[in-house]
Amino acid sequence: MQIGMMGLGRMGANMVRRLMRDGHQCVVYDINPASVAALVADGASGAASMAEFVGKLAKPRCVWLMLPAAITGKIVDQVAALMEPGDIIIDGGNSYYHDDVDRAARLRDKGLNYVDVGTSGGVWGLDRGYCLMIGGPDEAVRHLDSVFATLAPGTDAGAPAPDKAAGTAPFGYLHCGPSGAGHFVKMVHNGIEYGVMAAYAEGMNILKAGNAGKVKRDADAETSPLQNPEYYQFDIDLANVAEVWRHGSVIGSWLLDLTASTLKSDASLANFGGRVSDSGEGRWTLKAAIDTGVPAPVLSSALFDRFSSQGESEFADKLLSAMRYAFGGHVEKPKAGS
Amino acid sequence: MQIGMMGLGRMGANMVRRLMRDGHQCVVYDINPASVAALVADGASGAASMAEFVGKLAKPRCVWLMLPAAITGKIVDQVAALMEPGDIIIDGGNSYYHDDVDRAARLRDKGLNYVDVGTSGGVWGLDRGYCLMIGGPDEAVRHLDSVFATLAPGTDAGAPAPDKAAGTAPFGYLHCGPSGAGHFVKMVHNGIEYGVMAAYAEGMNILKAGNAGKVKRDADAETSPLQNPEYYQFDIDLANVAEVWRHGSVIGSWLLDLTASTLKSDASLANFGGRVSDSGEGRWTLKAAIDTGVPAPVLSSALFDRFSSQGESEFADKLLSAMRYAFGGHVEKPKAGS
Amino acid sequence: MQIGMMGLGRMGANMVRRLMRDGHQCVVYDINPASVAALVADGASGAASMAEFVGKLAKPRCVWLMLPAAITGKIVDQVAALMEPGDIIIDGGNSYYHDDVDRAARLRDKGLNYVDVGTSGGVWGLDRGYCLMIGGPDEAVRHLDSVFATLAPGTDAGAPAPDKAAGTAPFGYLHCGPSGAGHFVKMVHNGIEYGVMAAYAEGMNILKAGNAGKVKRDADAETSPLQNPEYYQFDIDLANVAEVWRHGSVIGSWLLDLTASTLKSDASLANFGGRVSDSGEGRWTLKAAIDTGVPAPVLSSALFDRFSSQGESEFADKLLSAMRYAFGGHVEKPKAGS
Amino acid sequence: MQIGMMGLGRMGANMVRRLMRDGHQCVVYDINPASVAALVADGASGAASMAEFVGKLAKPRCVWLMLPAAITGKIVDQVAALMEPGDIIIDGGNSYYHDDVDRAARLRDKGLNYVDVGTSGGVWGLDRGYCLMIGGPDEAVRHLDSVFATLAPGTDAGAPAPDKAAGTAPFGYLHCGPSGAGHFVKMVHNGIEYGVMAAYAEGMNILKAGNAGKVKRDADAETSPLQNPEYYQFDIDLANVAEVWRHGSVIGSWLLDLTASTLKSDASLANFGGRVSDSGEGRWTLKAAIDTGVPAPVLSSALFDRFSSQGESEFADKLLSAMRYAFGGHVEKPKAGS
Repeated sequence: MQIGMMGLGRMGANMVRRLMRDGHQCVVYDINPASVAALVADGASGAASMAEFVGKLAKPRCVWLMLPAAITGKIVDQVAALMEPGDIIIDGGNSYYHDDVDRAARLRDKGLNYVDVGTSGGVWGLDRGYCLMIGGPDEAVRHLDSVFATLAPGTDAGAPAPDKAAGTAPFGYLHCGPSGAGHFVKMVHNGIEYGVMAAYAEGMNILKAGNAGKVKRDADAETSPLQNPEYYQFDIDLANVAEVWRHGSVIGSWLLDLTASTLKSDASLANFGGRVSDSGEGRWTLKAAIDTGVPAPVLSSALFDRFSSQGESEFADKLLSAMRYAFGGHVEKPKAGS
Repeated sequence: MQIGMMGLGRMGANMVRRLMRDGHQCVVYDINPASVAALVADGASGAASMAEFVGKLAKPRCVWLMLPAAITGKIVDQVAALMEPGDIIIDGGNSYYHDDVDRAARLRDKGLNYVDVGTSGGVWGLDRGYCLMIGGPDEAVRHLDSVFATLAPGTDAGAPAPDKAAGTAPFGYLHCGPSGAGHFVKMVHNGIEYGVMAAYAEGMNILKAGNAGKVKRDADAETSPLQNPEYYQFDIDLANVAEVWRHGSVIGSWLLDLTASTLKSDASLANFGGRVSDSGEGRWTLKAAIDTGVPAPVLSSALFDRFSSQGESEFADKLLSAMRYAFGGHVEKPKAGS
Repeated sequence: MQIGMMGLGRMGANMVRRLMRDGHQCVVYDINPASVAALVADGASGAASMAEFVGKLAKPRCVWLMLPAAITGKIVDQVAALMEPGDIIIDGGNSYYHDDVDRAARLRDKGLNYVDVGTSGGVWGLDRGYCLMIGGPDEAVRHLDSVFATLAPGTDAGAPAPDKAAGTAPFGYLHCGPSGAGHFVKMVHNGIEYGVMAAYAEGMNILKAGNAGKVKRDADAETSPLQNPEYYQFDIDLANVAEVWRHGSVIGSWLLDLTASTLKSDASLANFGGRVSDSGEGRWTLKAAIDTGVPAPVLSSALFDRFSSQGESEFADKLLSAMRYAFGGHVEKPKAGS
Repeated sequence: MQIGMMGLGRMGANMVRRLMRDGHQCVVYDINPASVAALVADGASGAASMAEFVGKLAKPRCVWLMLPAAITGKIVDQVAALMEPGDIIIDGGNSYYHDDVDRAARLRDKGLNYVDVGTSGGVWGLDRGYCLMIGGPDEAVRHLDSVFATLAPGTDAGAPAPDKAAGTAPFGYLHCGPSGAGHFVKMVHNGIEYGVMAAYAEGMNILKAGNAGKVKRDADAETSPLQNPEYYQFDIDLANVAEVWRHGSVIGSWLLDLTASTLKSDASLANFGGRVSDSGEGRWTLKAAIDTGVPAPVLSSALFDRFSSQGESEFADKLLSAMRYAFGGHVEKPKAGS
């Protein structure tokens, strides 16, 4: 079917390519003409303006937005102004689902359909397919089924095809509920992602400390001694451990696959400094947990560690040192490297 | 090759079967004669006593123990008394690696080799293979290579075989270091497992609360109101969400496969009460983190939630309610169900 | 000076009494006439309706609201409709500071002043005084200075009076900033309160377990054995420990005073079931931390433990047990008491 | 009474002074002769060797050790070799209570009494008194009662003296149980201390971020935008807030007193870098919680934050960034200052 894609960054461009490979006709637009030209060369129909872009679409028009969350709201309003009742706007970016709920209500008053699609798969999606979590009105979601089926990974090669009548989840896409439900599920997906990542990272860090008994430690009043150095004499090869865990262990996962591959190419991770960004979904997941009174100690620990890695515990830590000085006369040790 | 297996519970018996399928000769012993008889019927050579068991083994004798951690130490001593220099004792259970380090040193004085093997794979190992994390002296580990290769999953069906000279990790087994290193790596594996499991469980619990805005809440001074019920109107189908995440998402994993399958068969988890056991490794992982000064907030949160599920926060919670009453006159709400 | 108080619950009534004791004239109103009558008997001027209440106040009218957060917004609007430019509305309840910011802006357009006062002190405030955290326009806050000074504890008996020109904080009240700042500071105060309370509660729970080595433990595969029972042979008298810590230790505090007194009267806390409520501020504190990217692992752990005590981790825990069954065949132990 | 003090650092020397002020006779020894000389000048009886020191003591000899934990064990053995049945060794340092249990058993075989005293009070103890948590045999503890009574703070000035027959806790010292119980209680005291300190520090850090809406933020894909800057426009005066909380609030405490005083003298904490040491007790508290299955999420979060401040999360954080790059192509932002 025909679909319009606006926002041709890494994610948007790859999605267009995956769609065209499977026979869909794509109309594309981006404020950067070079991004448009690249896809036109691959067979897409390009547009030089938002108006031209909308004008090229057949009714009901389907416009898929793949934009930074910060500007999605504004662009939704602009494109909606050019559309007609029955048309469909799809937000495939990382919007806050609260915004989806609000936007969908506004667009509904104009007869427009709003579909939010949480998309996981990262840079691998072009070949591997994207996992799609979808929210929106039934009819609009049904109308887009063939698009979702193309973008999603589909079933495993060689595995027997599940019965589609029993649901689309085994094909890698799911209509999760009304507008907002798609990004709600994607939000929690990312919250879980932070927790799973942190579990591996903490575990690897403990393994790395397996040789602590061999390392010379400061012997001053501000350093806790290692009680049993004889139990910390292991030089663990982290890359090999990650690799072996991929085969038959309980903690095998795609993130572990990536971890093994990363550690194999650079066991010391010398290219990284350890400042871990967070991109909104983890924060929103925690806010949802707090709103609804659901305990989330693991997910919050993972999020707060990222904040810490960004330097945001500095003042709190200074205050702790100041208190220790005040009650016990403890003088702080210098930071490593300073 | 020939190998002796002592301890024929679920894990031990399945390992014997997997070994025999691949042509190894197994001598088996258990205090329960029926367990021995069952494997003899499958082709193993059985023994009626520990002495007979050891007597049937050719030198260097290889005795694999698959016993509860609580009795492993005692049995190691008993079997060691029947063995001779050059023989090998393999502990495939869930021993604390501190005990491995101590035992290996004692056995080394007698010329015996001690090999500790952390084994992951659970009830699925018979068909899927076991992920093996191995500690011990080089020569003994090398001697057992064909046994490890059989028990491990091997490489993926259809995938090009990796070069074994580059290491055994891609085949699902790894010599991690000297005695204790195997169980050390397995211990951290389980610590990670707790964290990964908790990340999924917390996330699913948040998704489940997606309909909190539809649910009638108590409106009393002891209940926080839900600020924005309009954003919590989703009835999320957890089984379908777990299924869709298996296809192309960043958080795909074997634990997620199991979660999807479990939720599909019983979305309400009515067969479970929520008392989550922990089996030692999670605790030891945290102790290692504490000894070596490595932050593990995610892994500890996962462990402490299990303690809580076992009822162990009760006194602390009573004290919190008592403090609230003391400073603010707050009267506790009754527990649900009481 | 004259001040009107609306909302004569425990907090409001006690504040009126403390104000009258110090010579202030109080006009009082509540939907419950008995509450009004009780304070009229003590010397207040009562009103039978909101209109009468406002009518009795001299300009600029000062109306202090001491209401449940859930209805404060509505009452602010109603009373504001009866007031004139220059008048002052004080919200002394537990409002969310976001609401203060929004309300103050609306009232400012009508020429009304909005002052938010976070109030700590609980049931002890009548005699001990209330700690007041104040937000609002400078002039209105200055106008109310004598009221704040009366409600606050003032300086310690016997201590030299600090120089008031250097600020009012040593007297127990503080103008923290523009509208919303008072409840913002009070919110974080309560967030800290949760953390401090949890620190004592967890510590007491660990002391209570000091005799774990004397207690018979289940010896099954689902129960971790206690490694060193010889180190857990202590029957600690928690009430005495709380008492001794009050004298010269680093962790002396008012909450510890209350804890000692509570444990002295009932060491087993038999009157409490362990369902710990949370009242909004702890949640909002965490949301502020998340918004601003500030790590708050301790405060969040304290909050999530309360959620857990309310039964909200049940589904997550069931899922963990279900996963353990799925990969390892582990059968859950029954919950204590079931 | 007569008491011998060995180890004349800050703590030991001050304890001698407090004892002499109250009429006790002190025999003192330290490997540093200048430390001995300083106390001799104040009225103590000095010794130039351990043998001379022990020789000056009347039977039953009472030797109080105030030494770094790392050397206490060795010195206990040396001094024990010079003592006779019925003599008493008191360890007032920060020993691990496991060591107390073991040492007491060894000394008991020689007829010597071992008393462990957990001591809180820091640099303020000389004037304020020390809170003493005592473990050991009844008779030996009773023999030392007048020494404990002098070192402890006693009851509050002006307060009615409690009945000593009802226990010594109101005087600031407590016999907690057999050998080890004193340091066990002190250990948990410090665990709680970490939690309480962290609660204040996190809260202050959140207050400090009250002006986040005024601060220019990076607007890149690796920075989460601040959703509602209008709610983060507060410049909170942290020193004044700490001061006002000291008066009538629920979170008043001695640590808050110190915090207020510290922030008053240096609100920016410019003298501190934020590397927070931990001194053993916090670690041991967590190990006890883990051994006994008691949830301690707040205490562990506080401990792990200290580890993080020491740079120990670096590898884990690098791994998180590496994973983010691997699945999403996310390029790490540089660390502040690099």
